Amino acid sequence: MPDKIQNQAPDGEPATALKIAPSGPMSDETRGYFAKCEEKLGLIPNVLKAYAFDETKLRAFTDFYNDLMLGDSALSKLEREMIAVVVSSINKCYYCLTAHGAAVRQLSSDPALGELMVMNYKAAHLSERHRAMLDFAAKMTKASSDIEEEDREALRKQGFDDRTIWDIAAVASFFNMTNRMASAIDMRPNAEYHAMAR
Amino acid sequence: MPDKIQNQAPDGEPATALKIAPSGPMSDETRGYFAKCEEKLGLIPNVLKAYAFDETKLRAFTDFYNDLMLGDSALSKLEREMIAVVVSSINKCYYCLTAHGAAVRQLSSDPALGELMVMNYKAAHLSERHRAMLDFAAKMTKASSDIEEEDREALRKQGFDDRTIWDIAAVASFFNMTNRMASAIDMRPNAEYHAMAR
Amino acid sequence: MPDKIQNQAPDGEPATALKIAPSGPMSDETRGYFAKCEEKLGLIPNVLKAYAFDETKLRAFTDFYNDLMLGDSALSKLEREMIAVVVSSINKCYYCLTAHGAAVRQLSSDPALGELMVMNYKAAHLSERHRAMLDFAAKMTKASSDIEEEDREALRKQGFDDRTIWDIAAVASFFNMTNRMASAIDMRPNAEYHAMAR
Amino acid sequence: MPDKIQNQAPDGEPATALKIAPSGPMSDETRGYFAKCEEKLGLIPNVLKAYAFDETKLRAFTDFYNDLMLGDSALSKLEREMIAVVVSSINKCYYCLTAHGAAVRQLSSDPALGELMVMNYKAAHLSERHRAMLDFAAKMTKASSDIEEEDREALRKQGFDDRTIWDIAAVASFFNMTNRMASAIDMRPNAEYHAMAR
Amino acid sequence: MPDKIQNQAPDGEPATALKIAPSGPMSDETRGYFAKCEEKLGLIPNVLKAYAFDETKLRAFTDFYNDLMLGDSALSKLEREMIAVVVSSINKCYYCLTAHGAAVRQLSSDPALGELMVMNYKAAHLSERHRAMLDFAAKMTKASSDIEEEDREALRKQGFDDRTIWDIAAVASFFNMTNRMASAIDMRPNAEYHAMAR
Amino acid sequence: MPDKIQNQAPDGEPATALKIAPSGPMSDETRGYFAKCEEKLGLIPNVLKAYAFDETKLRAFTDFYNDLMLGDSALSKLEREMIAVVVSSINKCYYCLTAHGAAVRQLSSDPALGELMVMNYKAAHLSERHRAMLDFAAKMTKASSDIEEEDREALRKQGFDDRTIWDIAAVASFFNMTNRMASAIDMRPNAEYHAMAR
Repeated sequence: MPDKIQNQAPDGEPATALKIAPSGPMSDETRGYFAKCEEKLGLIPNVLKAYAFDETKLRAFTDFYNDLMLGDSALSKLEREMIAVVVSSINKCYYCLTAHGAAVRQLSSDPALGELMVMNYKAAHLSERHRAMLDFAAKMTKASSDIEEEDREALRKQGFDDRTIWDIAAVASFFNMTNRMASAIDMRPNAEYHAMAR
Repeated sequence: MPDKIQNQAPDGEPATALKIAPSGPMSDETRGYFAKCEEKLGLIPNVLKAYAFDETKLRAFTDFYNDLMLGDSALSKLEREMIAVVVSSINKCYYCLTAHGAAVRQLSSDPALGELMVMNYKAAHLSERHRAMLDFAAKMTKASSDIEEEDREALRKQGFDDRTIWDIAAVASFFNMTNRMASAIDMRPNAEYHAMAR
Repeated sequence: MPDKIQNQAPDGEPATALKIAPSGPMSDETRGYFAKCEEKLGLIPNVLKAYAFDETKLRAFTDFYNDLMLGDSALSKLEREMIAVVVSSINKCYYCLTAHGAAVRQLSSDPALGELMVMNYKAAHLSERHRAMLDFAAKMTKASSDIEEEDREALRKQGFDDRTIWDIAAVASFFNMTNRMASAIDMRPNAEYHAMAR
Repeated sequence: MPDKIQNQAPDGEPATALKIAPSGPMSDETRGYFAKCEEKLGLIPNVLKAYAFDETKLRAFTDFYNDLMLGDSALSKLEREMIAVVVSSINKCYYCLTAHGAAVRQLSSDPALGELMVMNYKAAHLSERHRAMLDFAAKMTKASSDIEEEDREALRKQGFDDRTIWDIAAVASFFNMTNRMASAIDMRPNAEYHAMAR
Repeated sequence: MPDKIQNQAPDGEPATALKIAPSGPMSDETRGYFAKCEEKLGLIPNVLKAYAFDETKLRAFTDFYNDLMLGDSALSKLEREMIAVVVSSINKCYYCLTAHGAAVRQLSSDPALGELMVMNYKAAHLSERHRAMLDFAAKMTKASSDIEEEDREALRKQGFDDRTIWDIAAVASFFNMTNRMASAIDMRPNAEYHAMAR
Repeated sequence: MPDKIQNQAPDGEPATALKIAPSGPMSDETRGYFAKCEEKLGLIPNVLKAYAFDETKLRAFTDFYNDLMLGDSALSKLEREMIAVVVSSINKCYYCLTAHGAAVRQLSSDPALGELMVMNYKAAHLSERHRAMLDFAAKMTKASSDIEEEDREALRKQGFDDRTIWDIAAVASFFNMTNRMASAIDMRPNAEYHAMAR
């Protein structure tokens, strides 16, 4: 019998530490959106449940997110998820590391890659291009005010054009927002993520 | 005659360091939005010009921003701007300090308050309630993964309910995003901000 | 087909980045020790292969390790592994996070607990006693020279006696050694750890 | 009507948080010095009022200051003030940022330059020479024990001779003193500085 | 025969890394001052030789220093030297640690106390009063902008009046200046200090 | 009469802050080992007294230590001690700085070298080879997860082979363990070290 460690609350724990009454009944549109999540992902990400108290906020969040992470970009979805996890690793965000770590494992079919992004991306054997991309995201996270033209030049040297540099910067910036939001309100990841794509 | 210091590029400098071709012609809706900005603010904020290359991104940004900073909240607009500037001060974001520092001066009619938020909010003589609000935003910015229930409790003790804690967290998170985006692409603030509400 | 990311070297990659010729042929004793590892763990941990170039060093390391992590102590093996992972998380050691993260999952039968120790132990819902134990280990890792009597008192208040405080300190100290050794020589964890006890 | 924020004490607030009785009556010399300040600057800087409790200390401070900031040097007065503000920005000293930020605006006739020194000097478009000068001052402020011959060489390459390197070092060092003194005793800047040279 | 380590330049090495021609011949007053140093201390401190290129600067420095460290104060000379060394320890200033470490040993007749101030003042068994004094100086050195009324109150609780708080602040501030000046120009301590009062 | 400062406990103070009863009577082997220490060093290092409560732990520690610091290596004993002190300086470990600072002074017959390692190794005039060795040890101590192949290459360029890089890494790692152990349990150095080899 394993040691007993008091860890997570039992199932049905709320998505965050805040108790916020919904501003109104859930619209059919949102109900449909959640059903689609459950069908495609097997779960409704807790971040969406957290935002659901106010449909304007939920819509603003999902519009922003879907364009950023799923919309057209020269960055592959995996590359965007790698940036997401490296940023979340620096910020030590349990929610985002869990959810987006799973995404890296799934999109890459390489469980070790997911772990490396969570643990220390510098220990991964990456192409110079990916390393430059992640170094830029890491610097943005740790010391954004030190970024200068030479940092952007380092990306251009690896073949990223300015339109794609925008996307790298936008993804890294976004997770600096969501990491902080998740930690500030103790957002808990869906338990299903842990076992995915191992 | 004053010393000559080579500082800012002459007028007409681009809004950011990235050269990105627009994804299409500007829609009438966006044209109208920009006209309204010029009418109400006397300028089109450079952040909007920066996003204008892609109207989906522009719309996602403005929807998010307008709900957050102008929508209903128990936080006054000034309180939201104070959070914005304190976060931007920690991240040393020239764009946001300039634009939102002007907003604090304007909304408070207290130029010194704007300077204090830019320079060191701990030197301001604030109410305990405002101090707790800004301390929470500052901790979210510097060490979000250290935030725990006792930090939220400190806000509740000052009379903030959970719905308002969400807003404090959301504003502080958002500027951790925009600060990094602005620094990553060297977004330049409109020159007009400097003289406003002095 | 998943994105292709250049990650880890193909199988058969060496245990570390250093090329060191063995100081002599492997003794029967060491051969036996390795066989026992393979039998009990299903693998020979790469750290042992790394030390095998010199049997005096290998023996010194395993004697120290086995007494510390497997010997008598009021700390359970799981508690020792939790300390190991929290220290390794602060030091971002890929080897130790991988190997000892697996141990936490195994000993606790709680995969989420392993992830929490890797990602952010402050997000775990722990007993006060375990929280105090890990806070002490974390402070030792980040700012050992700030530790004072009141830090030891905080452990005593949670029921740890001085003999057990020694063990907490010894485990936290040890992983501050091995984390640095592993990172300094790029020690690679055995691939098998990733899938264990998920 | 603007939001009400409790900010600064009403007029007549003391120059610092310390209540110190003067060691004797004010001498004619000091009285004359203060009159000259009022005539030339339109105010008696609060730092001088703070030191006035002891004329030996006041004299030691003003002698040091006047030689450093107003005496002969290959550095222009504006350059010395730029160093002062960059150092004060790193140390987040409200007093010095306010007083010397005003000096940069005045001496340069470029209000944006003053703001850039306060907010993030790396965002300013400076000559390589000025950038090297400020980088040296910033490194002295953040990590003086890491300064080595190559840092001094970087200044020499920009045309600074050793005599001028002394002055750069002396100004940066001095504001690391006054920033700390001002913060330690909560020295408040004269309100007049805020509106100057905007 | 001991290992050979290339360490310090042979005797007669210059006091700093800067080559600065004197602005004029040495005055009789300065010559006398140096003679008095040699007589009383057995050496001319290299810091004075460093400043001697310009007698105005030398005078400003010694006036400031002598009032601060030797003038009237409720702080004993030893207490002032303890502050000096703790500040210099945080800033890792070789010159000041050497010269003022010797002073602590001499004034206290306790060589271990000198070492503790150099190595880690928190490991010393100090009175609460001295601990509070050094904690204040350390906070001023590491994070002066975080100092607030409660930090000054902590000193008052230990019996320091406002006049003495000024002196604590002034000494801590001063060594934040001289530490940086010494490191910036690689000022070398007189070799004699090492053996003093051991 | 010197100022009175309350510093160290009177003679006979225990070796650490922990009160741990021995697990059994001292063996003849250990008694002999301690007698040899006293004969060769003039004292029994307090670290050994601290470990003596459990002879398994004592043996594991001394086996590890003696191989590392006294065994065969291309690094001289002085070089190993220099690494020990530089690591201990970053970690501000009073015990190790005192004991190993004395060792550097003794092995080098250069008291100033010992002080430089304690105070700021970057201020020492070292060979490029020693500087590279200490820079590697310092980086391991401050940011081990940032170490990459180029850091090992920098050592190889200075003539260190991979076997010797192992030893540099092993010594630096070990003192990151003992520094933390000593600080965690407030291990006090033998008073005799202070006066040795001055």
